[in-house]
Amino acid sequence: MRLATLRVNGSTRAAVRVGDSYALLEASDVAALLRTPGWEALAARAQSAGTMVPSDTADFAPLVNTARKIICCGLNYKDHIKETGRDTPEFPTLFGKFNDTLTGAFDEIELPIESDRVDWEAELVVVVGSRLSKATPAEALRSIAGYSIANDISMRDWQQRTLQWLQGKVFTATTPLGPEMVTADEFDPTQPHAVSTFVNGQAAQESTTDQLIFTSADLLSYISTFTVLSPGDIVLTGTPGGVGMGKTPPQYLLNGDLLVTSIEGIGSQRNVMKEAKLG
Amino acid sequence: MRLATLRVNGSTRAAVRVGDSYALLEASDVAALLRTPGWEALAARAQSAGTMVPSDTADFAPLVNTARKIICCGLNYKDHIKETGRDTPEFPTLFGKFNDTLTGAFDEIELPIESDRVDWEAELVVVVGSRLSKATPAEALRSIAGYSIANDISMRDWQQRTLQWLQGKVFTATTPLGPEMVTADEFDPTQPHAVSTFVNGQAAQESTTDQLIFTSADLLSYISTFTVLSPGDIVLTGTPGGVGMGKTPPQYLLNGDLLVTSIEGIGSQRNVMKEAKLG
Repeated sequence: MRLATLRVNGSTRAAVRVGDSYALLEASDVAALLRTPGWEALAARAQSAGTMVPSDTADFAPLVNTARKIICCGLNYKDHIKETGRDTPEFPTLFGKFNDTLTGAFDEIELPIESDRVDWEAELVVVVGSRLSKATPAEALRSIAGYSIANDISMRDWQQRTLQWLQGKVFTATTPLGPEMVTADEFDPTQPHAVSTFVNGQAAQESTTDQLIFTSADLLSYISTFTVLSPGDIVLTGTPGGVGMGKTPPQYLLNGDLLVTSIEGIGSQRNVMKEAKLG
Repeated sequence: MRLATLRVNGSTRAAVRVGDSYALLEASDVAALLRTPGWEALAARAQSAGTMVPSDTADFAPLVNTARKIICCGLNYKDHIKETGRDTPEFPTLFGKFNDTLTGAFDEIELPIESDRVDWEAELVVVVGSRLSKATPAEALRSIAGYSIANDISMRDWQQRTLQWLQGKVFTATTPLGPEMVTADEFDPTQPHAVSTFVNGQAAQESTTDQLIFTSADLLSYISTFTVLSPGDIVLTGTPGGVGMGKTPPQYLLNGDLLVTSIEGIGSQRNVMKEAKLG
């Protein structure tokens, strides 16, 4: 099953994919849907009886906009760790984002005027399906609702101003999330699914999901040691090698650049970078 | 005016202080209250007509439990920076917390069994009163609803496992917040209000709020550059010198320890540390 969150009549609605359309569901976003007991039955029923939106007219909001927790892992692909000059980690490196940091999978992304080092980070996203506290990796695996795509666009100058990365990672509407979540029965990230970023048609990042040091289940289990995860929470699992700051010379995103972020078996995002209007 | 969030009949309610009592308000917590247009008039009216709870029977929930953003500043007192061996920063060091990281000002705090380096950090808390985006410090100052107290209890072993502090800062129900928020017209943190932590009656941290490098207004203005702040959001402004890990030898919190965290002109928290029950 494939879920999305669409912009409909000035609001947002969770939706389920039916062929070339989406059937609208009674929830404001995929996170709210996953918090609804029996959501699978609701989604199955809507597939035959819901209001349909053809996919070519669908306007994709961020996959979730009411997550209680958005947690990101850094330094989780062997090749990206190598390009940052660091050692293979014993523990996952974690930081947070906010709901309004997210944006739609096909939205224009405004380049913050406060930064001139805007970089890309293609990431597999895990969507939590049930409450998790002090869970084993096996329990965590069973709690996964599905998988999606994000680009953890990072303002490197702000990220590196201090020891903590948060301020370079949470500019408003800079992390595209979606367009769809593929349910966990249809996607296994421990298989080698291609993860890529293309900038203006040129390959920048190319890896596979099986190169993650900490798997999706490992991450949820670890996080659940210290904080409770709930349905609709998301974890960004980290990015592979090939980010702009690792290139010689470094490459950053500019006005008009087309960023295409893909994970084989899930889908693709297409975001055009746009200069902020002054004043 | 002094606001609090009380536990009432299995739920929580915002309340306003009236002499030795609190008048209950139609909001689930102080953050929800601050998101209600005209909350000042509602609070003023309740002071004469609301349901009263005597303060000696009041059960204090965390001051907010529905903040959209909880942002913390590290390294913001000159004396604490000195004890960590770092230079005076050019920019504030920022990280996040979650609503369920917070706990009541008089609650027992469970020592996480996963940590044996649980440390204290007394902090002035700024509560946002109106929407802030790309605000000047003067605009930010006008947006402040009030001030409260937190102890940013930190699991130093987890905080130092990786480059990012988040995992040592967000264990469930470990950051007491409250008991009250004092409105901004009654408290000026640029004056030298004493900030202190006492552990079992012994002074551990003793400083004054005017020793902050980045003021409350500076912090809100800076944060509003990259993310929008809303009513009920809170910013923990950093801790002064005297944390346990800075002592020789280091001192960490143990079962039964009494932690008293105070800011002159706002109030005090009293939290007993309690060993987690196994199984």
